[in-house]
Amino acid sequence: MEHAFTDMGFAKTDHDRARRQGVGEVVYGAGKTAEQIIAICRSLMEGGQERVLVTRVDDEKMTALEGAFAQEPHQVFSQAHLFVAGELPTPYTRIGKVAVVVAGTSDLPVAEEAALTAEFLGARVERVYDVGVAGIHRLLACADRFQDANVIVAVAGMEGALPSVVGGMVSCPVIAVPTSVGYGASFQGVAALLGMLNSCASGVSVVNIDNGFGAGYQASLINRQSVH
Amino acid sequence: MEHAFTDMGFAKTDHDRARRQGVGEVVYGAGKTAEQIIAICRSLMEGGQERVLVTRVDDEKMTALEGAFAQEPHQVFSQAHLFVAGELPTPYTRIGKVAVVVAGTSDLPVAEEAALTAEFLGARVERVYDVGVAGIHRLLACADRFQDANVIVAVAGMEGALPSVVGGMVSCPVIAVPTSVGYGASFQGVAALLGMLNSCASGVSVVNIDNGFGAGYQASLINRQSVH
Amino acid sequence: MEHAFTDMGFAKTDHDRARRQGVGEVVYGAGKTAEQIIAICRSLMEGGQERVLVTRVDDEKMTALEGAFAQEPHQVFSQAHLFVAGELPTPYTRIGKVAVVVAGTSDLPVAEEAALTAEFLGARVERVYDVGVAGIHRLLACADRFQDANVIVAVAGMEGALPSVVGGMVSCPVIAVPTSVGYGASFQGVAALLGMLNSCASGVSVVNIDNGFGAGYQASLINRQSVH
Amino acid sequence: MEHAFTDMGFAKTDHDRARRQGVGEVVYGAGKTAEQIIAICRSLMEGGQERVLVTRVDDEKMTALEGAFAQEPHQVFSQAHLFVAGELPTPYTRIGKVAVVVAGTSDLPVAEEAALTAEFLGARVERVYDVGVAGIHRLLACADRFQDANVIVAVAGMEGALPSVVGGMVSCPVIAVPTSVGYGASFQGVAALLGMLNSCASGVSVVNIDNGFGAGYQASLINRQSVH
Amino acid sequence: MEHAFTDMGFAKTDHDRARRQGVGEVVYGAGKTAEQIIAICRSLMEGGQERVLVTRVDDEKMTALEGAFAQEPHQVFSQAHLFVAGELPTPYTRIGKVAVVVAGTSDLPVAEEAALTAEFLGARVERVYDVGVAGIHRLLACADRFQDANVIVAVAGMEGALPSVVGGMVSCPVIAVPTSVGYGASFQGVAALLGMLNSCASGVSVVNIDNGFGAGYQASLINRQSVH
Amino acid sequence: MEHAFTDMGFAKTDHDRARRQGVGEVVYGAGKTAEQIIAICRSLMEGGQERVLVTRVDDEKMTALEGAFAQEPHQVFSQAHLFVAGELPTPYTRIGKVAVVVAGTSDLPVAEEAALTAEFLGARVERVYDVGVAGIHRLLACADRFQDANVIVAVAGMEGALPSVVGGMVSCPVIAVPTSVGYGASFQGVAALLGMLNSCASGVSVVNIDNGFGAGYQASLINRQSVH
Amino acid sequence: MEHAFTDMGFAKTDHDRARRQGVGEVVYGAGKTAEQIIAICRSLMEGGQERVLVTRVDDEKMTALEGAFAQEPHQVFSQAHLFVAGELPTPYTRIGKVAVVVAGTSDLPVAEEAALTAEFLGARVERVYDVGVAGIHRLLACADRFQDANVIVAVAGMEGALPSVVGGMVSCPVIAVPTSVGYGASFQGVAALLGMLNSCASGVSVVNIDNGFGAGYQASLINRQSVH
Amino acid sequence: MEHAFTDMGFAKTDHDRARRQGVGEVVYGAGKTAEQIIAICRSLMEGGQERVLVTRVDDEKMTALEGAFAQEPHQVFSQAHLFVAGELPTPYTRIGKVAVVVAGTSDLPVAEEAALTAEFLGARVERVYDVGVAGIHRLLACADRFQDANVIVAVAGMEGALPSVVGGMVSCPVIAVPTSVGYGASFQGVAALLGMLNSCASGVSVVNIDNGFGAGYQASLINRQSVH
Repeated sequence: MEHAFTDMGFAKTDHDRARRQGVGEVVYGAGKTAEQIIAICRSLMEGGQERVLVTRVDDEKMTALEGAFAQEPHQVFSQAHLFVAGELPTPYTRIGKVAVVVAGTSDLPVAEEAALTAEFLGARVERVYDVGVAGIHRLLACADRFQDANVIVAVAGMEGALPSVVGGMVSCPVIAVPTSVGYGASFQGVAALLGMLNSCASGVSVVNIDNGFGAGYQASLINRQSVH
Repeated sequence: MEHAFTDMGFAKTDHDRARRQGVGEVVYGAGKTAEQIIAICRSLMEGGQERVLVTRVDDEKMTALEGAFAQEPHQVFSQAHLFVAGELPTPYTRIGKVAVVVAGTSDLPVAEEAALTAEFLGARVERVYDVGVAGIHRLLACADRFQDANVIVAVAGMEGALPSVVGGMVSCPVIAVPTSVGYGASFQGVAALLGMLNSCASGVSVVNIDNGFGAGYQASLINRQSVH
Repeated sequence: MEHAFTDMGFAKTDHDRARRQGVGEVVYGAGKTAEQIIAICRSLMEGGQERVLVTRVDDEKMTALEGAFAQEPHQVFSQAHLFVAGELPTPYTRIGKVAVVVAGTSDLPVAEEAALTAEFLGARVERVYDVGVAGIHRLLACADRFQDANVIVAVAGMEGALPSVVGGMVSCPVIAVPTSVGYGASFQGVAALLGMLNSCASGVSVVNIDNGFGAGYQASLINRQSVH
Repeated sequence: MEHAFTDMGFAKTDHDRARRQGVGEVVYGAGKTAEQIIAICRSLMEGGQERVLVTRVDDEKMTALEGAFAQEPHQVFSQAHLFVAGELPTPYTRIGKVAVVVAGTSDLPVAEEAALTAEFLGARVERVYDVGVAGIHRLLACADRFQDANVIVAVAGMEGALPSVVGGMVSCPVIAVPTSVGYGASFQGVAALLGMLNSCASGVSVVNIDNGFGAGYQASLINRQSVH
Repeated sequence: MEHAFTDMGFAKTDHDRARRQGVGEVVYGAGKTAEQIIAICRSLMEGGQERVLVTRVDDEKMTALEGAFAQEPHQVFSQAHLFVAGELPTPYTRIGKVAVVVAGTSDLPVAEEAALTAEFLGARVERVYDVGVAGIHRLLACADRFQDANVIVAVAGMEGALPSVVGGMVSCPVIAVPTSVGYGASFQGVAALLGMLNSCASGVSVVNIDNGFGAGYQASLINRQSVH
Repeated sequence: MEHAFTDMGFAKTDHDRARRQGVGEVVYGAGKTAEQIIAICRSLMEGGQERVLVTRVDDEKMTALEGAFAQEPHQVFSQAHLFVAGELPTPYTRIGKVAVVVAGTSDLPVAEEAALTAEFLGARVERVYDVGVAGIHRLLACADRFQDANVIVAVAGMEGALPSVVGGMVSCPVIAVPTSVGYGASFQGVAALLGMLNSCASGVSVVNIDNGFGAGYQASLINRQSVH
Repeated sequence: MEHAFTDMGFAKTDHDRARRQGVGEVVYGAGKTAEQIIAICRSLMEGGQERVLVTRVDDEKMTALEGAFAQEPHQVFSQAHLFVAGELPTPYTRIGKVAVVVAGTSDLPVAEEAALTAEFLGARVERVYDVGVAGIHRLLACADRFQDANVIVAVAGMEGALPSVVGGMVSCPVIAVPTSVGYGASFQGVAALLGMLNSCASGVSVVNIDNGFGAGYQASLINRQSVH
Repeated sequence: MEHAFTDMGFAKTDHDRARRQGVGEVVYGAGKTAEQIIAICRSLMEGGQERVLVTRVDDEKMTALEGAFAQEPHQVFSQAHLFVAGELPTPYTRIGKVAVVVAGTSDLPVAEEAALTAEFLGARVERVYDVGVAGIHRLLACADRFQDANVIVAVAGMEGALPSVVGGMVSCPVIAVPTSVGYGASFQGVAALLGMLNSCASGVSVVNIDNGFGAGYQASLINRQSVH
């Protein structure tokens, strides 16, 4: 078991992950300084990675990243707090799509994190927004937009009921993302998380609160199965 | 402020509640001995109450109650753990109905506690069972049975999503009852409780986990408003 | 099942809710940008809704909303963080009233959210403030102001005991609103929430912490029953 | 600092506590075998203690204790799960009384643990039972029985609101005892505990859930202050 | 939207799910009586379903089910608490496999629930057992048995670290199943659940505590993608 | 039951509390505006109360209060966030003292809130500071300063062990005050709170986290018993 | 990295651990059948391990184990729920000792699990029992028995204060073991666990609730350092 | 038992701890004012302590401390929020080393607090950073850097799995430090804390969330055993 990585002291960049896991390394931006993030991106790209995704980039770090990569291709997605060094790839066309189905307008930042992550990894993404279960006719009216997807990312805060209803309408896997949208007894997303873990629909699994990245990442892995 | 009650030492029966609150006293059976329950029922009926509802009666106490009231009218509802000394009343006919809408078969004991409590208090009750949100077409197919109710009691365990969907389909109040049905991260009904408290549907309020009695009681109060 | 809605991309406004639920749509202001709120209000009013209520409007968004509607009728309720595009309606006179009974001065913002929501929906509202249970004579002295209401909204923080005492004094439904007033083991309203869910008074249901809107909304639905 | 104790290997009995703390040692019966309890009682009495109180004695251990002390004075209090080796003392007469005020019939075992502990320590005790706040007139009707006490032990389960109301009616300290009576979101007494910790009445302190012993013990210490 | 279901009063069996979701209905056995389970199985098979899986069958219900189906093909899996009316299908051969990777011997009941569910739905399953992370060499030694799977179900109790390590070794999706194995601060599986939700490996999603069924079901859906 | 109060709309000041409870009303400053606090103080003093204590006064409100009472006697205690309109009274001399025993320097704000509240109510107070249990010799060295008190307020954060040790050293009641001092698994004082509720010392009761006021208030009530 | 293990299907026994970790493998008995435990013990001893410790053995499994090893050397420790196949070793004599200091009699099963585990691993153990902090003089009187240890295991339930006091009295590491002894707000050991994690004494670390084994194991590792 | 301390009113500095515990006193900087910290440092150094470590020093206090000690030897460690009055000592050379093994870059502040504390107490420290378990090859590649340590401090946030894997690779004690790195269901380090408490590796104990100091302190005590 031989693996290549660069030891930068505060971090060890893993040039081997693309081979081992089929995708390049993604940088978790929270808790790192802008300088650390920039150095890691550079190390990865020097190691041969074509593009790097940085997640959870706050405004101050975003400005620093834009400055550092001003002379190179890069993309900024403010609402989703994502930075891409390099360009998003052209979506796969031989395979199906990922649908991102979202309960409310306030859930958009997390939903976009999921959708853009999947796109970063090559997936085509169908966005179906503001179809919370308290207006069930809106969800039913949009069903044909997500029923042919290979995998669905269902994003909701508050009571987090969307994945249960969606899960009962489709035959593909559903990845549920609880968001911290709500107040009081939502406990920053715990209510939605528990609701999703207890979904009475089969075929639903769950990621951490506000973890749009994780859901988009796994959705992309599942979506790619269809060309194996 | 003058009120009549009988001091039995271990309990003070309140003969005035019917006047003050419009219904007779109900006896919470858990934590009392069968002897205490029987004595309280007798005291209330001697104080002029026509019928007494006892809730949360386990099998052993039920047997004792049946024995004690063997020579008098009484009714036993095993699934709902309810005992009625006296007879259920004839339902009101001048007013509308209460609907009890239920997610799954496992929720029936709590649902029946709610339905029978409302019937004990004079309401007509429409039961709509096994219409959980993971098979949304079953709920939609039954909508005409609950959309004309004065008030809906929505009972669900696990993720507790039913009241949110029902709440978006009707114009009457919805009382949500979380049940302890589920396992693992349902935490004996906490997941359902939080889901219901965070319902994105307006017009939904919530009672304690497994509190079918409380929901049936309040539903009956609301239903009676229409003949004021 | 045909329903009218406008798809604005980030939101789908529901022009049909007034027909379906008997009231127009209300906008949850938290987690939306001022621009999104304004666009949703305009869409709803163009769809035929006479007035729109926006809840949880912080100071910055309130200023933006006031600016956007400067040339049109609107109302600002700072303490309750509510904005109304259009005018409050004339209260119903054929029917009874909603009482809002409140434990302490610190609970007023939530209480006003409840009272104003009910007024927005046409109810007459009786406000009974600062009658916490630790000075029970104050509550008893005010009893005649709330005992003839069709429904009571009881608002309290800290131990949240008010609904239990009020619930025992009246024959109408009580909707309990826990507030986040308190410190330490109040856990931002959890103590009050649990207290209310476990109320030993019958006829009490509960909404989310600080959810004055939800309580006022449901109270209005119940109050309207009396003219059916 | 010199102190006398006997080292029994599995336990060290403290013959000095009566001098140091003004009362003899009490034995916490849970988690000890009947044999250990009996040996500890004997050791304490041989060390000069006139009577020993054993708390949380289950049925099996109670039988063993009764057998062991069959030839000696002893008392059994089944409802309160207490055993006394020796006799209860004659109550102090020069000083005031402790009042034990209790919400519901189901709270009696805890209440009796408190009352009997205080009596074991010499206090006169006034018992005021079944005066929960949902029937506030019953509490008010009994006020003269507890308003002249030196200290009040207020026992309640469910929402635990009793100490707040009582605390506002008296000028003496109130010790609140939450009980595990309730179900669902009572969380085995946590709801009552939190309610009591957040009491809006001044002069209220709290002991552990179902800790009638602790409340009775402290009440006795407070009551004794008046003869200092 | 037309859907076929049979209304049995206490349950509504959904004959349409095979068409809508690609698999037949599965019966959640907890909280239903043996009689209800048998009736539901019969209704589904009369509605055309070839085989029915019943989960969470305790010993008493298992005996009743075996009795009821004694004259028909059926299978009993005691360790996993599963009953199958009918026969398990022949595994798909054109597609890859599902790997079930398990931390400890005590996790086997949950692991088998997952493995058998996937087999019930047609998947080939590779079982890799007792490879917890505290003996990392055992996991590494078995890597070639799971690295070519289409999807991995990783089952672990206690600290639930297995999915993080496995997730970093493969390029396919990992579904993590926390088990209630452990004591003290494992809180019946909460520690493992939280560990898995916070996995630092990308591509991991989570199901409810002890929900082997849910993981096996979703794994089967993902595995099937490869023949779309 | 006749009681005098002034209805100020947002508050009802209770001129009768001194008679009913033996002390004047105290104003909880959090959640009220400076204007409301000032108006309440004025109302109480006009109603005959000699001095008013305001708790939980932040810096901004303190400045406003100082300004409003600049021409009148008043006292400011910044560390304890207390304001007194009027003067502190002369301590009772006929009776014993209250001891305030404190674990660490970081607990001083809460400890001073307790000590000053007791002094506001007439008690003599002995302060014993920085005697946490990890340096037990410091506590033992100070024992003679608190062993003759009528009542002890024991203040501690982190593990909150001080009241258990102190409780075993004295024969008077101990009121334990958990503070929010600590980090991580102290959960803002929950660890200390739980520690104190589970104290193995008899004679200990507990108030809310950081509730120095409540402890000082009750301590004063207990201390006064000795002159009854 | 080559390691020897035997794959038994349901378990993989690790014959290499003695070399890698310096001790033989220990078997966690909970959640395994008696048959599995016996097979694992045999496999380990055939692999060359001289003795095997089995933890958390309930009465039924203990009987089965005694039967299986009836013809071979073995030892049963009922109070601690431990079984040893083979004999306990002779303690090291060249090095110091481990002290196990325990708060109460009810904590003995956990304390013995710790002490016997250390002895199984060769340590000399000093037992100091029933020295809870509420009788501080008992602890002080025994100080000379634990102050010269190389490492202390401090065992306590309820508020778990013992390690803080002990930690301040010694210069060696203290391993704190919270026990589930207590009731109500002890939450099965959570109160003690939190208390110990927040210990104000330096040099204290903590293991899981009731994990006497883990503490004894680590204590033995630390104790052995002194002969390196 | 005689001990020397200086009573400064707000604090009692303990000049005896070096003798009693083998190290000088360390000052917990949070919750103390800069003035208090400086006074305590001066008192300790005047009492004969050669150097003082202050932990949890925020930026503002750090500036004040630097100012106060500008004319004297001192050291500032910003990332770890540590201040040292005096100089770090020369590491022991006769004994082994402490290894600090760290999961991610975001955990560095806590890891440095641990490493520097151990160095302050005389230990040699090996730092092994960014070796989280999701890239297990990085950890394996560094094994030879920590396998010969006397004790390992393992620092990780999120799921906190690192100590379990490390614990299985070594024969020395492991002290696990959970960090608050993470979001959502990490609950500020609770997920990592629970994971570590439930570690399936033997020989692991745990300190409070983010308590690098405590781990470094205990590691130093253990490391020193080898020269006893």
